[in-house]
Amino acid sequence: MERNGAYQDKQWCLSEVDIFCDLSAQEMAAIAEAAPKKTSAAGELLYTPGSSDERLFILKSGRVRIFRVAADGRALTTAILQPGTVFGDMVLLGQQMYGNFAEALEPAVVCVMSRADVQRFLLGDPRIAARITQILGARLTEMERRLCDTVFKNVPQRLASTLTMLAGPGRRVSLTPTAPVVMLTHEQLAALVGTSRETATKALNDLAERGLVRLGRGRITLIDPDGIAAESGD
Amino acid sequence: MERNGAYQDKQWCLSEVDIFCDLSAQEMAAIAEAAPKKTSAAGELLYTPGSSDERLFILKSGRVRIFRVAADGRALTTAILQPGTVFGDMVLLGQQMYGNFAEALEPAVVCVMSRADVQRFLLGDPRIAARITQILGARLTEMERRLCDTVFKNVPQRLASTLTMLAGPGRRVSLTPTAPVVMLTHEQLAALVGTSRETATKALNDLAERGLVRLGRGRITLIDPDGIAAESGD
Repeated sequence: MERNGAYQDKQWCLSEVDIFCDLSAQEMAAIAEAAPKKTSAAGELLYTPGSSDERLFILKSGRVRIFRVAADGRALTTAILQPGTVFGDMVLLGQQMYGNFAEALEPAVVCVMSRADVQRFLLGDPRIAARITQILGARLTEMERRLCDTVFKNVPQRLASTLTMLAGPGRRVSLTPTAPVVMLTHEQLAALVGTSRETATKALNDLAERGLVRLGRGRITLIDPDGIAAESGD
Repeated sequence: MERNGAYQDKQWCLSEVDIFCDLSAQEMAAIAEAAPKKTSAAGELLYTPGSSDERLFILKSGRVRIFRVAADGRALTTAILQPGTVFGDMVLLGQQMYGNFAEALEPAVVCVMSRADVQRFLLGDPRIAARITQILGARLTEMERRLCDTVFKNVPQRLASTLTMLAGPGRRVSLTPTAPVVMLTHEQLAALVGTSRETATKALNDLAERGLVRLGRGRITLIDPDGIAAESGD
C-alpha cells in the first residue's frame, strides 16, 4: 500500500466523522493524536489480500469500494462505503478482510488506527462503541438484503433495487434540482449487482428506453425513482 | 410471540454466554437481574415480522434460524445462530429484523433485554461492547462470503462450502469418533444454500454416492471433510 498522503490536520480528520459526534474537542484531540490521516487518489488500493498488518480505517471523505475477486477473475463488490464508515482487517472488530480489496472510487481520506488505538479509544468509549455496533449492524442488514435479492430476484430487479438503495436517504448522491444521480459506471454497478457489465448495460438501456433513467458517462440519473423502485420486485 | 418460558434461574442464563466471560460474579448478577430468560420449543417462532417492540435476544442454548420469506413463499435462511450470539430488532445495534423470522431449531433458551438494558449493561461495558462488535463483524464476514458464493458458485459448490462452514472449528456439531455431523434436514440446508429442497437433495445424493457424506434423518455425516471442502470451488 502506498502512503502518499499527508499526516497533518489530524483533528480535522476526525471531527466530521459521525462516529465521534458525541465527543468534546478535548476527547477528539486525544484520539486525533493516535490516528494519522492518509489521502488516496481515485483507483488507489487501500487494502489488498496481501496486506497483513492489523489496521482499522475510518473513511473521512470519498467513497471506497470493497470487492473480492473469484478464481476466474470476476469481481464482486461487497460494499461501497460512505464517509463515516469503519473498515479494515481487525480481529478485534470481527472484521476479516481476507480476500478483500479496498479501492478508492474517488479521492478519499481515511484515518488509520492501530489495534491498540482501537481498543483504547474506540471500544473503550461506550458512546463510540455504540456507534460502531450500529454501523456493523447496518452493514449486516444491508448484506442480508443483498443476499436475499441475489437468491430471489433476477438481474433487472436487483439492478432496480440497488439503484433505489444507492439513491435512498442517507446515501451520498449528487442532487440536481429534479433527480438523484448515482455516480457509478456500468461496470461498477454490475460488480455490485453481481452480474456482467453487458447484462447490466442491457438492463440499464431498458430502463432508459422506458424513461426511468438517463445514462451519462459514469453517472445514472434517476428520472423516476418511484418507477424504478416499483421494478425491484419488493 | 408466545411466552411459554419460565423467568427464573436468571443468572445461570447469562453465566455461560461467552460475551460475558470477562465479567465477575457481581457484574453478572447485575445484568442477570435485567435479563429475563425465555425457553422456546423446537419450531417456535421467537420473532416474526409483526413483532414491533425493540428487544435484544442473547442465545443461551439451542440453535436459532433467521429467515426471510419472499413474495412467492420461498424462504431463505440468512443465519443459523449458535449459543452466545446476540440478535433482535434493535436500532441501537443497527440490527433491523424487518421481514425476518427467528425460529428455534431445537429447544432453545434466550435472555431477553430491553433497549435500556442494552444501553446500560452491554454497550456501557467496553469488554462486552468489544465482544458484540466481534460477533457482528464475524456475521458480516460470513454474510459477505455467502453473497460471493451465491454469485460465483453453482449449487453443489455452495452446498459443499456450507457443509464445510457448518462443520468448521467453533461451530456446533455433534462429533462421532470419526466424522463431524451437521444436524440439518435437506430442507433446512436448501434454505441456507439458497436453492430448492429437490436440488439440495440431488447434490447431497451425489456426495453420498461418492462416499463423501452419509445421509440420515435430519443429519448429514461428513465422512470426508477434506474431500467436501475440495468441492467448494475455493
